[in-house]
Amino acid sequence: MDKAKPLPAYLVQRYQGWKATTYAENSAWYRKLATGGQHPRAMVISCCDSRVHVTSIFGADQGEFFIHRNIANLVPAYQPDGAHHGTSAAIEYAVQVLEVAHLIVLGHSNCGGVQGCLSMCSGQAPELDAKDSFVGRWMDILRPKYELVKDIDDEAEQVRQLEKHAVMMSLENLMTFPWLAEKVNSGKLTLHGMWTDIAEGGLEYYNPAAVKFDKV
Amino acid sequence: MDKAKPLPAYLVQRYQGWKATTYAENSAWYRKLATGGQHPRAMVISCCDSRVHVTSIFGADQGEFFIHRNIANLVPAYQPDGAHHGTSAAIEYAVQVLEVAHLIVLGHSNCGGVQGCLSMCSGQAPELDAKDSFVGRWMDILRPKYELVKDIDDEAEQVRQLEKHAVMMSLENLMTFPWLAEKVNSGKLTLHGMWTDIAEGGLEYYNPAAVKFDKV
Amino acid sequence: MDKAKPLPAYLVQRYQGWKATTYAENSAWYRKLATGGQHPRAMVISCCDSRVHVTSIFGADQGEFFIHRNIANLVPAYQPDGAHHGTSAAIEYAVQVLEVAHLIVLGHSNCGGVQGCLSMCSGQAPELDAKDSFVGRWMDILRPKYELVKDIDDEAEQVRQLEKHAVMMSLENLMTFPWLAEKVNSGKLTLHGMWTDIAEGGLEYYNPAAVKFDKV
Amino acid sequence: MDKAKPLPAYLVQRYQGWKATTYAENSAWYRKLATGGQHPRAMVISCCDSRVHVTSIFGADQGEFFIHRNIANLVPAYQPDGAHHGTSAAIEYAVQVLEVAHLIVLGHSNCGGVQGCLSMCSGQAPELDAKDSFVGRWMDILRPKYELVKDIDDEAEQVRQLEKHAVMMSLENLMTFPWLAEKVNSGKLTLHGMWTDIAEGGLEYYNPAAVKFDKV
Repeated sequence: MDKAKPLPAYLVQRYQGWKATTYAENSAWYRKLATGGQHPRAMVISCCDSRVHVTSIFGADQGEFFIHRNIANLVPAYQPDGAHHGTSAAIEYAVQVLEVAHLIVLGHSNCGGVQGCLSMCSGQAPELDAKDSFVGRWMDILRPKYELVKDIDDEAEQVRQLEKHAVMMSLENLMTFPWLAEKVNSGKLTLHGMWTDIAEGGLEYYNPAAVKFDKV
Repeated sequence: MDKAKPLPAYLVQRYQGWKATTYAENSAWYRKLATGGQHPRAMVISCCDSRVHVTSIFGADQGEFFIHRNIANLVPAYQPDGAHHGTSAAIEYAVQVLEVAHLIVLGHSNCGGVQGCLSMCSGQAPELDAKDSFVGRWMDILRPKYELVKDIDDEAEQVRQLEKHAVMMSLENLMTFPWLAEKVNSGKLTLHGMWTDIAEGGLEYYNPAAVKFDKV
Repeated sequence: MDKAKPLPAYLVQRYQGWKATTYAENSAWYRKLATGGQHPRAMVISCCDSRVHVTSIFGADQGEFFIHRNIANLVPAYQPDGAHHGTSAAIEYAVQVLEVAHLIVLGHSNCGGVQGCLSMCSGQAPELDAKDSFVGRWMDILRPKYELVKDIDDEAEQVRQLEKHAVMMSLENLMTFPWLAEKVNSGKLTLHGMWTDIAEGGLEYYNPAAVKFDKV
Repeated sequence: MDKAKPLPAYLVQRYQGWKATTYAENSAWYRKLATGGQHPRAMVISCCDSRVHVTSIFGADQGEFFIHRNIANLVPAYQPDGAHHGTSAAIEYAVQVLEVAHLIVLGHSNCGGVQGCLSMCSGQAPELDAKDSFVGRWMDILRPKYELVKDIDDEAEQVRQLEKHAVMMSLENLMTFPWLAEKVNSGKLTLHGMWTDIAEGGLEYYNPAAVKFDKV
């Protein structure tokens, strides 16, 4: 592997700034985190999207959240077939090894992955149907929910609804992991479904009693 | 799915604080990001570990980095078999849709995933060899590198070397994606391998000329 | 004193959030509290333990409780010898200056101080017997109660009983303060002994008629 | 001890509210805190004053801060004489057992203890000079700083300066604990001196370079 390059200078400069300020102010804590290990209270499953940084929204500092980020904050169903399952591995580590108390799935507005799923399911993006489209095959996880939104006329509303269904899909799939369901049922783990609006800074949570999202 | 709970009050309170300060100060930017879409300069592949928040280390704000986080910042080899591949989907979206200019793999010290890989490969963690161990099967990606560190006597040094090999493994596997290699070879994308020391706040980059990591 | 550092940024951020929300909503009350002085209804003596925040459990807002927190919520006996007595000073201020109507001693489960006392008294923690062990010398206050629990076989039950005896010990010692006993006897002050279970969120009170703790 | 009474009904009602809401939403976390123990990042030494709740100002939830509260947030000098030292015991437990990374001394405006110290030192409160005045003997810790403020004419400014000197006095006395100084000098613990204005919700930190308090 001979292609790697040094870090761009602007990032080196920012890193040096962090080292001289944030690190310097927190070095005792970082050393303790290194020697004493991490004890995060929650795992967060969020999107890779550059506009959604959960550490900012929740003021989370080093050591607080164990964070998995993938396209559209999706969790596949339990499938212990011996293949590489990155999301399932992250969940297993958080729940079984770190024993986090909360598992938060955070969806968001303007999600490119969800928009792509909609285009694919409605036949407008045949390239996403190709076997070698990793995005398409990943968004297959959300495909069962397309039926629930396909008749919504307002396209913006349709995407928004499917974004929220992505959160619910993930919550449903989480419960297919037997050791996770056991912890939820015995009160050792709580699940939370959230959705944030990038433009307005809004935050909503899934309310199972009302089967809809309410503002926090 | 009737198990979801509202967000814990302490997070609601922190969110309200964020809304009243950070969001309020940046609402024009967030609205533009929502309507104009994201244009991140780099994709970062980092670990889920709660002690490594790349947005903090690099002072990154909303819109700058497209971030995928999984156990041990691993990238599997290109495998377009139609199954769900979350990491590959994130890479495809960043490179093909967003056309990021940099792809940074960020490893770190004290990595529980790498430590687990070492225990598994040396026969001390048979539970990780089980077919239904998602963590074990995910860490199989790193298994080929075990040979290179198995004779290191100092255990701390052994883990540290394998953590760095995890970064190199990911860089190697990235180049197996044909459309990614094409962009690297044509100068449209640069790859960067980094490793950070949690305790000391150190940062090193992979130097292919010297085949080792150097301090930035 | 040249060692002090600025506040870590994550706490500055949280403070700014509090200032923009909780403070902004209550500024009139906070200004009145500043100019008109505090008039708390109760004093609470609680443990320093990070898992027991009395303001949370009792929904107490600014101005309601005068709170002293020390290791294992202990009150030493009245000893007006001219030395520094932090707990006795806090009690004197609350009872004589602020004239609170209630004095609540709040014990809790999983108390490290009480566990240490048990280890010390049973000979398993000789380091706590050293003259320069501040924790050991502080837990000497509880030592007389060890006799009452030393024959309990179930270790979890033994700790739990000693935690409750710590509350009773404090109540007994409170009555050795002559001006406090006078107020209790004349109906100007009432004492309350409480114990909370961290895991289950339980709350019990000391019932002198039954000489045991009952659920509230 | 036959004087204890049940909890006042208004507090039982609030507790039931907490149990049904905050506890119910966080039961998984509280159970983990009970079984896995506390790992607080910081110790805070604050005043008993009912108007200063550090958990509110810093949005701290269960498990985050180990909190000692006494009159005027004072720390006495290291004195391992075998007597009961509640403040020193709390510091020892936080620094030696829990190994917190930060120790924050939080002073505040309108401090009755500091006002009493000023009255005592200026001869206006002879009752506080009595041997059996626990408040007076506790405030003796701050007495050495009276010399530095005695010539300030503006009384409000004089109290404010002495409140800040109380924070500095505590920081100085903290460094007389040999095992604490060792951790500060080796970068395992950082000290922070803060002062908050109740009326305005302000927050200042001690800046040793300038030998004064600056706004955060």
